[in-house]
Amino acid sequence: MIELNYRNITKEVIGEENGLDLSKEFKDYKDTIKKIITDLNSNKDKPGQNLQWMNSGYNEETIWYVKEYAAMVENRFDNILILGMGGSALGGKALCEAILPPYWNYLTKEQRNNYPRIFFLDNIDPDQMNALLSILDLKKTLVNVITKSGSTAEVMAQYMILKDKMEKELGDDYRKNVIATTDKNIGILKQLSDQEGYKTFYIPDDIGGRFSVFSAVGLLPFALVGIDIEEITQGVKDMDLELKNTNIESNIAAQNALIHFLMDVKKGKKISVMMPYSNRLRYIADWYCQLWAESLGKEKDKNNNTVNTGQTPVKAIGVTDQHSQIQLYNEGPNDKIINFLRIKEFDTKLEIPNIFEYTGISYLCGKSINQLFNAEADSTMASLIDYKRPNVTITIPKISAYYLGQLLYMFEVQTAITGALYNIDPFDQPGVEQSKNYTYALMGRIGYEDSANELKEKLLTEINI
Amino acid sequence: MIELNYRNITKEVIGEENGLDLSKEFKDYKDTIKKIITDLNSNKDKPGQNLQWMNSGYNEETIWYVKEYAAMVENRFDNILILGMGGSALGGKALCEAILPPYWNYLTKEQRNNYPRIFFLDNIDPDQMNALLSILDLKKTLVNVITKSGSTAEVMAQYMILKDKMEKELGDDYRKNVIATTDKNIGILKQLSDQEGYKTFYIPDDIGGRFSVFSAVGLLPFALVGIDIEEITQGVKDMDLELKNTNIESNIAAQNALIHFLMDVKKGKKISVMMPYSNRLRYIADWYCQLWAESLGKEKDKNNNTVNTGQTPVKAIGVTDQHSQIQLYNEGPNDKIINFLRIKEFDTKLEIPNIFEYTGISYLCGKSINQLFNAEADSTMASLIDYKRPNVTITIPKISAYYLGQLLYMFEVQTAITGALYNIDPFDQPGVEQSKNYTYALMGRIGYEDSANELKEKLLTEINI
Repeated sequence: MIELNYRNITKEVIGEENGLDLSKEFKDYKDTIKKIITDLNSNKDKPGQNLQWMNSGYNEETIWYVKEYAAMVENRFDNILILGMGGSALGGKALCEAILPPYWNYLTKEQRNNYPRIFFLDNIDPDQMNALLSILDLKKTLVNVITKSGSTAEVMAQYMILKDKMEKELGDDYRKNVIATTDKNIGILKQLSDQEGYKTFYIPDDIGGRFSVFSAVGLLPFALVGIDIEEITQGVKDMDLELKNTNIESNIAAQNALIHFLMDVKKGKKISVMMPYSNRLRYIADWYCQLWAESLGKEKDKNNNTVNTGQTPVKAIGVTDQHSQIQLYNEGPNDKIINFLRIKEFDTKLEIPNIFEYTGISYLCGKSINQLFNAEADSTMASLIDYKRPNVTITIPKISAYYLGQLLYMFEVQTAITGALYNIDPFDQPGVEQSKNYTYALMGRIGYEDSANELKEKLLTEINI
Repeated sequence: MIELNYRNITKEVIGEENGLDLSKEFKDYKDTIKKIITDLNSNKDKPGQNLQWMNSGYNEETIWYVKEYAAMVENRFDNILILGMGGSALGGKALCEAILPPYWNYLTKEQRNNYPRIFFLDNIDPDQMNALLSILDLKKTLVNVITKSGSTAEVMAQYMILKDKMEKELGDDYRKNVIATTDKNIGILKQLSDQEGYKTFYIPDDIGGRFSVFSAVGLLPFALVGIDIEEITQGVKDMDLELKNTNIESNIAAQNALIHFLMDVKKGKKISVMMPYSNRLRYIADWYCQLWAESLGKEKDKNNNTVNTGQTPVKAIGVTDQHSQIQLYNEGPNDKIINFLRIKEFDTKLEIPNIFEYTGISYLCGKSINQLFNAEADSTMASLIDYKRPNVTITIPKISAYYLGQLLYMFEVQTAITGALYNIDPFDQPGVEQSKNYTYALMGRIGYEDSANELKEKLLTEINI
C-alpha cells in the first residue's frame, strides 16, 4: 500500500513555531474526522451530494463497455486525440504519462505493441492546434471529445474544427473516428452525438470534472492505449476500503487532510507543493494542482460567511526543481508544506560506468543513477528539515496502474475531507462563472448583451498614473 | 517593443485594500530606482558583481564561434541532446519551444528543413533516461553537456553514461558527437574536455546559471536547430538600451519590479503567477519561476539581517489553467499578483466552421479560434478585476526570436532591480549548498563523512506520535 510519513511536520523535528503537536491534534480532531468520514460514506449515493466519484472503484458496467469498445477498435488507429479542458484532460494525461513507458509517442508501432500514440489537446492556441492538425493523419486518428456539461466553449470549438476537417477528408465514415464522453441527458454534445451517430460514453451524475478520472473520462483513453483499467480500479477499490476507516490513526487521507488544514490555519503555510521524485509522475502534480485549487479555493463557507480559503498548490519535480525552486523553499518565507512523492523501486536500473576514477567525480563511479536520484531526494528533505520547513513523504511501492489508482483516489478523499474541515463545498466552482459569461458576451452569444456592456467599460477605462 | 499594462494593480481599479497608489509610489521611488539602474550599469563590468549577463547582447565573439560550429555540423545530426540542470536547460527549452514550430520533434526532417530534433534531459529519473537512450540513434546524436561549475553531480553522471555508451557504439569517433559548455578555467568538465578533445564553449565569468540563456548555454542549441541567434541578441540589445533609462516612468522592467516588490511588502501578495496565453510560451513560465525563486528567495539581506524574502512564482497557462487554477485565484486568498503574457498576433489563424448554426453553440460559428482565445484571456482578466485581484499584462507583438530576446532580458533586469529593492543578493544561492553536501555524503564522496553522519541521524530518528 501507499505510505504517508509525516514526521517532518511535527514540532519534535522542525520546532514549535512551524511544527504541529500531532499527538494532541490527532486526539482533538478524532471525533471530527470520524464524523466527516462517516458522513462521506453514508451520503455518497444521495443525489446532489456530488459524491458519486466515491463509487469509482465499483464501476463494472463502464469497465465492461470501455473494454468492449477498446477491443473493437484495436489496431485500427495510429493516434488517439483527446479534446478536453481541465478535469477532462488532466487525469488522463497524468496517468498515461505515468503508466506508459516514457517517450511513448516516440516509440515505433511495434514497440508500442500496436497501440496508438496519444495526444491531449487541452488548450486552444491557434498555432499549436494548426501544428497538431498538420502532423496527424486524421484517417488513422480516433478523436475523443470530452465535456461533462457538453457545452465547454473551447472543447466544442475544437470539436467543430475537427469534425469539419474529418468529414471533408473521410466523408460520412468520419463518424467512426469520433467518440463523445459527456452527460447522459443534457448538453449540446449529447444532442449532436445522437444526431451524428457517434459512439458515446456517459459521465455519471454527481461527478465533477476534477473527480472524474476513474469514470469513462479517463478509463476510455487508458484502455485505448493498452493500460489495464481493472488494475486501476482494483487500486481504487483497495484504497477505498482502507479509507473507510474512521480512525484518524489509520487513515492516511484523513491524516494528510488534517495536516494540510492545520498547517494552513495554524502555521500560515498558504502553499502546498507537490514534488514527485519521478519524471513520469510530473503530470500527477498538475492533476493535484487542479484538484486542490478548484476544490478548496472558495470565497464562502457553507454558512455563507466570507472565508477566502485555499492553499495555492505548486508543482515541482525532483531533481529538476532542486535547481530552480529549493533555494526559495529553504530560505524564503516559511509559508509552504511540501509533499514529496517517492517511488520505492523504479522499473529500470541505470549504472554509472566506472570511468574517470582518479578525478573529482570518482565518487560517482560504479554507482547507479537510481542511487544518485534517491540520495538527492533524501538530501533535499534533510535540508528542508535544517531550515525547519514542513514536509511529508508519500511513498508508492512502484509505478503501476494499481498503485496510481490508489494514489489518485487517496488524494480525492483527502481533498473531500479537507473541504469538510474548512466547512466549504469542495465540489463547486462558482468563481469561474462570471468569466464564462464574459466570454459568451465577447463572442456575441445571444442573451449576454449586458455582460458585454459591463465588460467593455471594464476593459477600456483609462487610468492616469 | 514589449508593453506593460499595469492599470489593474492600481487602487483606482481594484480598490485601496489591494491596489497601489501608483502615482505616489512612482514619485517616492523615483530616486531609488534611478540609483539602482545607474549602479547596475556602472558596475556591470566589475569582476565579482555577477553582472556580465548585462553584456549578453554584445557577445559578438560567442555568436561568431557558435555560428561557425553550427554551420560546420549542419545536416550531420538527427538529434541534439542537451544534458543540463536548472539554468543550463530551462532557457534553452523555453526559447526552443517558443520559437520553433510547435510539435517540432514530430515533424519530418524535410518539414524541419533538415535541422535536428532537440531533447532536453534535465532530470536523472532512471526510467526516463533508459527510455530516451532507447529511442536515440547515438551515431546521429550530438550531445551538449552543460554545467557552469563543471561539477554538477547529475549532469556529470548523465555525461559518464552517455560517454561510455557512445564510445562503445562509435569508437574513438564519439568525440565528434560531444560538445561541452562550461567554465573556461575551472571544473572537472573543462579538464575532461581537454583530455578527450571535445569542442568546448565557455560561459563567461560572472554569469550565473539562471542568467545564462544568452551565453553559449542557450545560443549554441538555438543555432543548432536553425534559430537566428543574431535576431535574439538584437532583441536583447534593443531592450538593454530601453532599460538603461533611469526614469521609472519609461522603464518597464523597473515598473514591474517596483510593482511586484510593493505588492509583496505592502499588500501581502506572496505569490507571483506567470500566465502566458500561448501554449508555445509555457516553458517561459518555468524559466521565470527559476529566475524569480532562486534570485529573490533569500534568508539574509546584504546587511546580514534575517529577512526570508521572495515571492513564490507559480506557472499557469491560458486557457488551460482557467479550468484548473482561476477558481482559486478569484475566490481564494487575495495573496497573488498575476502576470498575463499576451501575444498581439499569432503566426496562424484557425477558423471555426459555420456548422451547427441552429444549436446552443451557434455563437461560435464563423468565428476564429484566435478570437475565442483572446476573448477567454480578456474575460479572465475582467473577472480578476471583479474579485479585486491585482494583475499586469505584458504584451509582445508576436512570437519571434527578436521579441523573446527582449522579453527574457526584460525579466532578468526586472529581477536584478527587485533584488536591489529587497536589499538582497539576487545572484547567489546559498540555500542549496547543504543539500549538495548531503548528496556527496550519501554517495560516499571523500571528505564528506561528517555530513554523512549528521544526515544519518536526521533521517533515522523515530518520532512517536
